[in-house]
Amino acid sequence: MQVSFSAAEIAAIVQPTASRGATTRVIRGLAALADAAPGDLSFLGNAKYKPEVARTRASIVLLPADYAGEPPADQLYLLVANPSVALARICARLEQALWPRPVPGVHPSAVVAPGAQIAASATVGPLCVIEAGAVIGERAQLQAQVFVGRGAIIGEGSWLMPGVIVEAECVLGRRVRLQPGVVVGADGFGYEFVQGRHEKVPQVGHVEIGDDVEIGANTTLDRARFSRTAVGEGTKIDNLVQIAHNVRVGRHCLICAQVGISGSTVLEDYVVLGGQAGIGGHITIGKGAKAGGRAGITTDVSAGAFVNGNPAIPYMLERRIAVLTQRLPDLFKRVDAIADQLGLAKKSSS
Amino acid sequence: MQVSFSAAEIAAIVQPTASRGATTRVIRGLAALADAAPGDLSFLGNAKYKPEVARTRASIVLLPADYAGEPPADQLYLLVANPSVALARICARLEQALWPRPVPGVHPSAVVAPGAQIAASATVGPLCVIEAGAVIGERAQLQAQVFVGRGAIIGEGSWLMPGVIVEAECVLGRRVRLQPGVVVGADGFGYEFVQGRHEKVPQVGHVEIGDDVEIGANTTLDRARFSRTAVGEGTKIDNLVQIAHNVRVGRHCLICAQVGISGSTVLEDYVVLGGQAGIGGHITIGKGAKAGGRAGITTDVSAGAFVNGNPAIPYMLERRIAVLTQRLPDLFKRVDAIADQLGLAKKSSS
Amino acid sequence: MQVSFSAAEIAAIVQPTASRGATTRVIRGLAALADAAPGDLSFLGNAKYKPEVARTRASIVLLPADYAGEPPADQLYLLVANPSVALARICARLEQALWPRPVPGVHPSAVVAPGAQIAASATVGPLCVIEAGAVIGERAQLQAQVFVGRGAIIGEGSWLMPGVIVEAECVLGRRVRLQPGVVVGADGFGYEFVQGRHEKVPQVGHVEIGDDVEIGANTTLDRARFSRTAVGEGTKIDNLVQIAHNVRVGRHCLICAQVGISGSTVLEDYVVLGGQAGIGGHITIGKGAKAGGRAGITTDVSAGAFVNGNPAIPYMLERRIAVLTQRLPDLFKRVDAIADQLGLAKKSSS
Repeated sequence: MQVSFSAAEIAAIVQPTASRGATTRVIRGLAALADAAPGDLSFLGNAKYKPEVARTRASIVLLPADYAGEPPADQLYLLVANPSVALARICARLEQALWPRPVPGVHPSAVVAPGAQIAASATVGPLCVIEAGAVIGERAQLQAQVFVGRGAIIGEGSWLMPGVIVEAECVLGRRVRLQPGVVVGADGFGYEFVQGRHEKVPQVGHVEIGDDVEIGANTTLDRARFSRTAVGEGTKIDNLVQIAHNVRVGRHCLICAQVGISGSTVLEDYVVLGGQAGIGGHITIGKGAKAGGRAGITTDVSAGAFVNGNPAIPYMLERRIAVLTQRLPDLFKRVDAIADQLGLAKKSSS
Repeated sequence: MQVSFSAAEIAAIVQPTASRGATTRVIRGLAALADAAPGDLSFLGNAKYKPEVARTRASIVLLPADYAGEPPADQLYLLVANPSVALARICARLEQALWPRPVPGVHPSAVVAPGAQIAASATVGPLCVIEAGAVIGERAQLQAQVFVGRGAIIGEGSWLMPGVIVEAECVLGRRVRLQPGVVVGADGFGYEFVQGRHEKVPQVGHVEIGDDVEIGANTTLDRARFSRTAVGEGTKIDNLVQIAHNVRVGRHCLICAQVGISGSTVLEDYVVLGGQAGIGGHITIGKGAKAGGRAGITTDVSAGAFVNGNPAIPYMLERRIAVLTQRLPDLFKRVDAIADQLGLAKKSSS
Repeated sequence: MQVSFSAAEIAAIVQPTASRGATTRVIRGLAALADAAPGDLSFLGNAKYKPEVARTRASIVLLPADYAGEPPADQLYLLVANPSVALARICARLEQALWPRPVPGVHPSAVVAPGAQIAASATVGPLCVIEAGAVIGERAQLQAQVFVGRGAIIGEGSWLMPGVIVEAECVLGRRVRLQPGVVVGADGFGYEFVQGRHEKVPQVGHVEIGDDVEIGANTTLDRARFSRTAVGEGTKIDNLVQIAHNVRVGRHCLICAQVGISGSTVLEDYVVLGGQAGIGGHITIGKGAKAGGRAGITTDVSAGAFVNGNPAIPYMLERRIAVLTQRLPDLFKRVDAIADQLGLAKKSSS
């Protein structure tokens, strides 16, 4: 991306409380302190990297207001209340360049069925398919090669990136952002075993996604057996996550990559699940509960709890048991020594 | 979806052995007992929810024949041999509305290479690509944006949902159902390490999928190094599953979401794998064996066995060890106490 | 695929040091020793299968130069230095038939924005979308339904299979091979928690992929928060892998299916990760380190180390602890017996 900011332009964006030094460089990129070259802007977002400030070659460095040092020649320190927030402001400016506002209208290569409703301010990009009865809201964007099935509803300002599939009857709220390859509304995995064969249980519900939800690349959300699979307002889901049929995810949850949630499980609001965690079916995870990465949850989790391990148990207990497990070789030896002293039969400790 | 059934229409579908009460409501939706509102139909599918029957606001409730209570005003009980089966009959009717029979023919936006054979009763939807030599069977449906590669064969009555990719030379049986984003026939992951580089081992086999197989969204099945990767008749595979090259999956297996099966492993018939399980390469899982969710299987599993844990071991043993593992803090303390009593050196138990 | 080789043609390809027997069959397929039928070619690639040679029905068998037996009637043994290498030569010949060299040019159904640069020798297949400013290098192939975003660069000789998505500003080196459904450049998963809501941290970096990298079906690689997510030259990544934002993967690494790598983690060169392994964020995996399948890595790993388990620890220690864990029932009983002998309070061992 073409980045080009003068020192004055950067200062105008971040509004520093003070500055030290100066640079004549044009800023052409952002980089971590250790990676930065002249022409880059960098920042101290984590105190652990403080020693790198003095060595960085960045032309501009965003620093906390209490940072003490002085910059070398042709380097500018901008002191701000929160360097991360200041950086985010610069990034937001860059984001507008990376993703320019699309032009409203339907690309001539898109295939739109009669009876689909597309708002005048919406953008339907090249090679999208929109089936009958679908509704595309105001300022929604279907970037390219997106599929929207019969009767599905895409809320205003939502953004579906390339290759997204929203199957029939599913409903997206406002400002929903689906990264490439997301599948909303595949069939749930339900079969009855009858005379030696798995007979399909029809999956005739749908998926409902609340306002301001973001879903990561190639994540899948299955339609309910009947009624709905739901994701609450403001929840963020990472890549390659599996949400099974009839799951209810609350509001403002964070679900990291490759998590799997089995059928009919309920996540209350503000739940956080670490990467690759797996949740069994028909389980309730209470409000604000957290699970560590790779946790395997097989029973209900209380509101506010922090669980870890497989099967998942309270975090502090899991950590203690993990430590003791690593000390098993020693424990077996000690028991052998005790048995020896008592004249009991010893068993080899390995 | 527009659902609209009178009480008489519902009764005609489920054929109750008896009924109690009555409703004048038109049924507009299906819902669980606790979620149902007037105008919904609900059912008692699991005895655990029996107390909810008396409180449900559903207008019609499907109940087992021996259910004892009486409905309130404007509510109808329909007593049936198996409420789940009765519900499935209603859902099957709804499914026809959700997925109307497609009109045969090739959409003008599809790109069909000369030399591809498409049956007259097949449907090739918008923006599909069919390469030379591919064969699309009678009544097969390629919904939209589907890719079928050179020489691939799609059996009669199969249904490929949007974004499905079937690469060159792969073969699908009859009535195969591929959910959106499935990839059949990507290259297997095979390299030889030669002079500091991974050289690709050509993957020139294909994938064969039997009749009545269903495969979930964004699942991947790799082509064999040579010969074939195979999935047997009637097997059902959930979302985001990885089937590596040369794997042979038997008939009527169930493979839950996010399972990974490494190269050349064999699943005999009727195997069931819980979600996120991982199977090593060159392993045989015997007929009817089961693995719990997140099991890590590194050795052969006998027919009929039920394994769990990582590494996977027999289920009952795994459960017992899991319980004992949680009691390690106590065990360390007891050994400390014994050592103390014997005058042996004690080590801190945490 | 139509395979058709005479015995003389096979011999010309593999250049045997000696041969025994003869066959008049035309070779129509490749198969493992136990599966082969007349008309197939087979090989002994692993000494463990030696007893199967005498029983195989293959018409031609590739064998190591020191193999002692004699073939039956109508079977030909070809003795070679390395049967696997000899087979790979045949497979390479087949690969050319499976994937014929595409004809350069842009398919009329592709949508190419003004300002995209496409080399004259490149192939842009049906229903691809190329946005403004994208650059497609010499001999690159976009097979079908591929998306290349604004300003992205596809290096010479790279091959993007159907449904691949390369988002804006991402850069691919030379001879990169992306299997179907790969997503390069989705947003990283970054939010700040502000007043009860997760506010998006703009993700304005990109993804850089080195020469000769291969990436498996439906794998996802996220763009950096700023700067870049990078995959080094010669690295091979399997299906359904998640590479988070700001990750740096070194050169010549092997990453098996369903691995997840969290944000800002660094893999040095020649790292090997087994299937379904998970790596936490901000971790460094040293050069040549290996992790077993399903390993959960939460701390740095030294160069050359081999770790296993969750949390991952050195492989030999993990194996020893796994064995001792399985012996816990016995240990609890022994401690009970000791306590009994000492007159201490006993606790039930299960």
